Amino acid sequence: MASPPNGAAAAAAASSAAGGAPPVDKEVDFANYFCTYAYLYHQKEMLCDRVRMDAYHSAVFRNPHHFRGKVVLDVGTGSGILAIWSAQAGARKVYAVEATNVAEHARELVRANGVADIVEVIQGTMEDIVLPEKVDVIISEWMGYYLLRESMFDSVICARDRWLNPGGVMYPSHARMWLAPIRSGLGDKKMEDFEIAMNDWNHFVEDTQAYYGVNMNALTKAYRAEHEKFYLKSSIWNNLHPNQLIGQPAVVKEMDCLTATVEEIREVRAQVTLPINQDRTRLAALAGWFDVHFRGSKQNPAVEEVELNTAPDENGGTHWGQQVFLMTPAPRVNEGDSINVSFSMVRSKENHRLMDMDITYELHEASGRKLPAVATKIFLE
Amino acid sequence: MASPPNGAAAAAAASSAAGGAPPVDKEVDFANYFCTYAYLYHQKEMLCDRVRMDAYHSAVFRNPHHFRGKVVLDVGTGSGILAIWSAQAGARKVYAVEATNVAEHARELVRANGVADIVEVIQGTMEDIVLPEKVDVIISEWMGYYLLRESMFDSVICARDRWLNPGGVMYPSHARMWLAPIRSGLGDKKMEDFEIAMNDWNHFVEDTQAYYGVNMNALTKAYRAEHEKFYLKSSIWNNLHPNQLIGQPAVVKEMDCLTATVEEIREVRAQVTLPINQDRTRLAALAGWFDVHFRGSKQNPAVEEVELNTAPDENGGTHWGQQVFLMTPAPRVNEGDSINVSFSMVRSKENHRLMDMDITYELHEASGRKLPAVATKIFLE
Repeated sequence: MASPPNGAAAAAAASSAAGGAPPVDKEVDFANYFCTYAYLYHQKEMLCDRVRMDAYHSAVFRNPHHFRGKVVLDVGTGSGILAIWSAQAGARKVYAVEATNVAEHARELVRANGVADIVEVIQGTMEDIVLPEKVDVIISEWMGYYLLRESMFDSVICARDRWLNPGGVMYPSHARMWLAPIRSGLGDKKMEDFEIAMNDWNHFVEDTQAYYGVNMNALTKAYRAEHEKFYLKSSIWNNLHPNQLIGQPAVVKEMDCLTATVEEIREVRAQVTLPINQDRTRLAALAGWFDVHFRGSKQNPAVEEVELNTAPDENGGTHWGQQVFLMTPAPRVNEGDSINVSFSMVRSKENHRLMDMDITYELHEASGRKLPAVATKIFLE
Repeated sequence: MASPPNGAAAAAAASSAAGGAPPVDKEVDFANYFCTYAYLYHQKEMLCDRVRMDAYHSAVFRNPHHFRGKVVLDVGTGSGILAIWSAQAGARKVYAVEATNVAEHARELVRANGVADIVEVIQGTMEDIVLPEKVDVIISEWMGYYLLRESMFDSVICARDRWLNPGGVMYPSHARMWLAPIRSGLGDKKMEDFEIAMNDWNHFVEDTQAYYGVNMNALTKAYRAEHEKFYLKSSIWNNLHPNQLIGQPAVVKEMDCLTATVEEIREVRAQVTLPINQDRTRLAALAGWFDVHFRGSKQNPAVEEVELNTAPDENGGTHWGQQVFLMTPAPRVNEGDSINVSFSMVRSKENHRLMDMDITYELHEASGRKLPAVATKIFLE
């Protein structure tokens, strides 16, 4: 046997666990998801993300009127940094909720930074815990890959609906998901890897017949499907350079964190047109990223709006990078062409924190010729 | 946020999951463990292990008297290979039990290899399923890293106690765990990685104070502990060359699969002396590996005994490799010295399939000088 500590495990987990979500098995959810945040190396990775840190730091300290004398709730405080900043910005009281054992570290940090009288770290899930009072501000860094992976915003919505005072503000206040056509060598590389894997399998089938008298060919189709999903149909983390964009990005989802509902994010659907602005290139993939904004609320706007943008950036990106959805084969495109995309993203049936995408695109050439629609499934795991 | 599909997850899982084993939460156990075996790439890795395949193939086909006309139970059949061989060797009936969805693939293989009338694939755990009859042979490839990781032998014991006929045989019939002193560059490398990680952390602490006004120093101790465990106290998979052995290996555990009990493997304790047979070298680590034997039983012995050995081998190893337990710092040793080791391995409180080791060694120099005992914890995750 010998099962290596295995990256696949976390993602694949629930697909073996009979049932899956909903309803969510909390123990399994911890095993698959929360556990990764219990590691300080992972907390540090997020704390070293300058784009992320600068955005939240500016949002808080350039809008002290949202914090001075106010009650703040930090959903998923992790190391406690946002709670500490909120206290430093003048909050009267900060409730810092964290599900994992990193809560103990948050408590240490809070003490070491002299805000223990203001910040109260509560270990538990947002769905379970009870606060002694309503809050004026909910701050949270809840964004996963392509915004919605991890489905953590559900807990922010839960927190908002249970604990936010009328007129309270959300940090961040708004979020958008983007989609853009890109060129990239990734598709050819992955296709090559896939072909190597299949050649390797074919030799394995021959050898197993020759040496051990067993015909493995019955599994070839399943092996191909497993590896096609792994190499070609899985969303790929990448830190893109802006010059890889070959057309206009488009927004596929926009939400107001003050009013968004779980229903509205459980299934994201959009029809967008992506004009190509480069000649003689190939549509290797569509890329997905997000931005969030700190604008306060209509009744209580920010004095200085701040944006956290995870778009391709030549000055280096964020730990979120961008997600690359391969188009294989990659069609040739030219300036003036446009790509009509019908996009849908729903939660995986087996694990509500992972996403399944259906992407269908139609290439409309500048000449007026329309190519037949091409449909792809992409798994964000 | 953004939690990457994370190798740590599987191993760390239960440490976040409140409670843990015993009793085992079956859903969590699937999430952490069984799921990895549902992947064909992982099945293929095992099927490509020639040492493993040859040993089981020889054991079965050179001992047809154990299979001809007999009823066989394959515990954790995976792709079904051992069940198919048992049928090809003349078994009257083979029950092939598999917990994961790979059971469906096993069924396909069984059909494709024309033994569907003999091999019955049953999806379920050994603890839950019921067989219509007792069996004459239990065959299983249950061995994890350093034999006992994964604790799968528990299920073989359960199968044996419930379903094996008196006089029945176990495949394999015997198993041993070995411990040996080795030289290796791994220790220095890991120590260097650890120091780099800590320097990096110290810069992070300075930067976070300077840029974001938060003192992270309170977490330095915890960060050091987390990384010391990761780099220096975690058992390391390695494919050693025999010339890395600097002394005599010793057996720390020997078991008869026909009589072994869960109590006996839940905690492995041994006192062994490892004579050093190389001059002017360093005890970089102790290495652990296992072998299993196919001898049949006293009443019903094998006509040809077969061994599956995972010791260091210059002709290339197995997918199990060996496990390296670093001794940091690594003491200088010489020919004629001997290492007195007190070894214990117990199951992790958080996850019964992972192992915690306590290794204390005393260096007895040829001169007669005894160095003070050094104790290390090693985690096999």
